[in-house]
Amino acid sequence: MAPRITTLTTDFGQGSPYVAQMKAVLLSMNRQLTIVDLSHAVAPQDVLGGAIVLGETYPYFPAGTIHIAVVDPGVGTPRSIVAAALDDHVFFAPDNGLLTLVQQRCRAPRFVRLENRAFWRGTVSRTFHGRDIMAPAAAHLSLGVALDELGSPLERPVQLEIPQADRQKQRIQGNVLSIDSFGNLISNIEADLLPNDVPEDRLRIQCGTARIDGLVTSYGTRQAGTLVALVGSSNRLEIALVDGSAAAALKTTVGVEVIIDWPL
Amino acid sequence: MAPRITTLTTDFGQGSPYVAQMKAVLLSMNRQLTIVDLSHAVAPQDVLGGAIVLGETYPYFPAGTIHIAVVDPGVGTPRSIVAAALDDHVFFAPDNGLLTLVQQRCRAPRFVRLENRAFWRGTVSRTFHGRDIMAPAAAHLSLGVALDELGSPLERPVQLEIPQADRQKQRIQGNVLSIDSFGNLISNIEADLLPNDVPEDRLRIQCGTARIDGLVTSYGTRQAGTLVALVGSSNRLEIALVDGSAAAALKTTVGVEVIIDWPL
Amino acid sequence: MAPRITTLTTDFGQGSPYVAQMKAVLLSMNRQLTIVDLSHAVAPQDVLGGAIVLGETYPYFPAGTIHIAVVDPGVGTPRSIVAAALDDHVFFAPDNGLLTLVQQRCRAPRFVRLENRAFWRGTVSRTFHGRDIMAPAAAHLSLGVALDELGSPLERPVQLEIPQADRQKQRIQGNVLSIDSFGNLISNIEADLLPNDVPEDRLRIQCGTARIDGLVTSYGTRQAGTLVALVGSSNRLEIALVDGSAAAALKTTVGVEVIIDWPL
Repeated sequence: MAPRITTLTTDFGQGSPYVAQMKAVLLSMNRQLTIVDLSHAVAPQDVLGGAIVLGETYPYFPAGTIHIAVVDPGVGTPRSIVAAALDDHVFFAPDNGLLTLVQQRCRAPRFVRLENRAFWRGTVSRTFHGRDIMAPAAAHLSLGVALDELGSPLERPVQLEIPQADRQKQRIQGNVLSIDSFGNLISNIEADLLPNDVPEDRLRIQCGTARIDGLVTSYGTRQAGTLVALVGSSNRLEIALVDGSAAAALKTTVGVEVIIDWPL
Repeated sequence: MAPRITTLTTDFGQGSPYVAQMKAVLLSMNRQLTIVDLSHAVAPQDVLGGAIVLGETYPYFPAGTIHIAVVDPGVGTPRSIVAAALDDHVFFAPDNGLLTLVQQRCRAPRFVRLENRAFWRGTVSRTFHGRDIMAPAAAHLSLGVALDELGSPLERPVQLEIPQADRQKQRIQGNVLSIDSFGNLISNIEADLLPNDVPEDRLRIQCGTARIDGLVTSYGTRQAGTLVALVGSSNRLEIALVDGSAAAALKTTVGVEVIIDWPL
Repeated sequence: MAPRITTLTTDFGQGSPYVAQMKAVLLSMNRQLTIVDLSHAVAPQDVLGGAIVLGETYPYFPAGTIHIAVVDPGVGTPRSIVAAALDDHVFFAPDNGLLTLVQQRCRAPRFVRLENRAFWRGTVSRTFHGRDIMAPAAAHLSLGVALDELGSPLERPVQLEIPQADRQKQRIQGNVLSIDSFGNLISNIEADLLPNDVPEDRLRIQCGTARIDGLVTSYGTRQAGTLVALVGSSNRLEIALVDGSAAAALKTTVGVEVIIDWPL
C-alpha cells in the first residue's frame, strides 16, 4: 500500500512545536504516513481564512488523502469535532465551518462526530484536540478503521456564510476573499463569471479607491509598480502590483469590494 | 526496519537554507530517515527557549527517535558536543544546557562527547557543527553505529537553571516559562501543584499587573477579549486572552512572575 | 530504487498554500518522492537572492537530487522554463538567471526548454507555472522520462551578473552577497582569496562605516555585542555581531562594499 498522504492546516504559526506534536502523534501510530504542511499561516482563530486555504488547495492532492484542519477557537466547548468523507478525500476538523468551501465543492458528503474515545489519545487535554483527538483518529483511519466507527452521523455541519460574487447585467460585484504572500488580492469572482462577449481590455475593475482598465494575462506583462487585474492560478480575478504588494499599496484587507463593469 | 524519525530543533528561522543543509547531509547518508521539523523558531541564541521547546515536545515522538538540537552560540569554542541516550530517545546537541529539560524528565541518561572524527563530515567548518558534526554523527547512529563509538563518556553535562514553581501554604509562586504563537503565557506551574481541595473558581491568579479570578476549562468558555487562566495542553497553568494575544495585551515577557493564591 | 529527493526553492513565503499545491502535484504523480524545502524565504521576485540560496545549498544534496526553483516574476511572459542536468543534479527553473550560481559551479551543463506539453498538467494557469509545468515535468523525470524528452536544447541560458570579489596587491574588494537569518553579513570573498602569508589578526576589514581588526575563528570567541569578521560555514568572509544581528546594528543591505587590507 502506498504511504498515505496526510495534510495539516492550522493557525499555529510556522515553527510552532504544536505542529510537531501533531506529527509526532501521527507518526507514532503510523510510520508510513507522508505528512505535508498545507499551511500553518492561517491567522489565529481565522476560521474563514482556514476554510479558504483548505478549500483552494485540497483538490490538488490525490484521492485518498487525509486532511486535518485545526483552527479551533471553541476547543473545549461543546462544539463537535467531525470527520468527513468528501470527494474521495477525508477531512478532520472542528465543526465550526472550517470545511465550508470543501463542502461546496463536493457531492454527497458524509459527516460523523468524533465520539468514539477508543480512537483518541489516552489522555485528552482540554485545549488541544488537534493533537489528542483529531490526529489519533486520523491515524486510526489511515490504518483501516472505517469512518463510521469513529462516531455517529452528523446531519447538519456548521457552514460559514462566504460572500458570493454577483453578476448583474453589466456589472459584477464581488469581494477580496484572501490575500496571498505576495500581497495579491484574490477575489471571489470566478473567471467564468466574466462576460465572454466583451474584450478583456474593455473591462473596468474597481477595488477600494483604485481603478484598473482591462485585464492582463500575467504579472510580468506590465512595468514594475503597475497595478494590474488578471485571472490568477485559482481561476479567480485577482489584483496585483507588478513586483510589489497590492495589499500594501492599497492598504486593502479581506472583504473589500471589487466591482467590474464594462461600458457598451 | 521502519524508517527512523529524526527531528530538528534550531534557532535558524523558518526557511533558512542552513536547515536544508542539515537535511541534505542526513539524507545523503541515510535515505530512509523521516525528518520532522520540531521547531526552527527558537529565538537566536536562546538556549533556554530551545531547551523548553525540545523538552515539551520530544515525549510525543515514538521511542527510537533521534533529536538534533542546534542553538549553539558557542560553536567553534572549546564547548563539547554531546550525544545522549535518554528514555529510549537519542539526542545530539552542544553541551550548553539545551538538554536540561530532557534530562530532568529522564532516568539514567548516558552522555558521550562527539569526539570520533570518523563519524564527522570530511570538511568541518568552524561555525556550523550542526551540519558538519551532529548531522553526520546522527546519521551514522541511525545506520547502526553505537552511541559509545561516537566518543567518550561525559559525566556532568551542562545544566541550565530553570526557574521552578514554589508552593507555600496558600500561595504558589511561579513564572512565565514560554509564550506560544497565540501569545498564550505558559507558566512553570504544573497542574498537580494546584490545591485539589479548593474549587477552581476560588483561585486568584496574578501575572504582572493583571488579576484573574478563577480558572476556566478552555479558551472558548469566555467572551473574546477576556483574560483567562487555565490548565493548558502541556498540563501547566497558562494565561490567555480569548481570541487574542495575552502577551501583547499585558506586554509580558518570559520570566514575569505568576502568583496564585486562595482566600480561606 | 531509493526514494528520489526533490527540493523546492521559492519566494512564496513559509506557509504559503502555493508550496502545498506544488507538493500535491508532485506526490500525486510519484508517491515515492522525498520532498525537502530548501527555502521559501527568498524575498518576493528576488531572483539573485534565490540564485544564491540555491547555489550555496544544492551541493549538500546527494547526486540524483531534483531541484525545483520558482522565483518567477516573468511568469506568463515569453520567458522560457528550463530543465538542466548539472553535476549529477537536475534543476527546473524559469530561464531568468535563477541557476546562475549553479552553472558557475558545474561542468558541462545541459539545458532544455520545457516545451513538451505531454509532461505538463492538463490545465495550465497563466500565473503559476511552478505548479502547472515545472512540478509535473519534474515528476515525470523522476519516473524515468529523459531530460531530452522534455523539450529542445537551450544554448544560452540567462545568466545574472553576480558581483565578484577582486584581489589587488594589498587589498581585497568585495560586497555583501546575502544576509542570513541571524543577521550575519555574508560576503562574496572566498577564504582562498585571503593572503596566506599575513597573520589573520593583521587583516583590517571595513564594511560600510564599520571597521574590524583581525579575523576570529568563530562567533563565541568574543563578548556579546562585539562586531567580528570570520570565515563562515560557506567558506566565505562574513561579518557578525556576537549574540546579535550585524545587519540590524550596521543597517546594512545586500550589495554594501566590504574591503579587506593589511599594512606591510
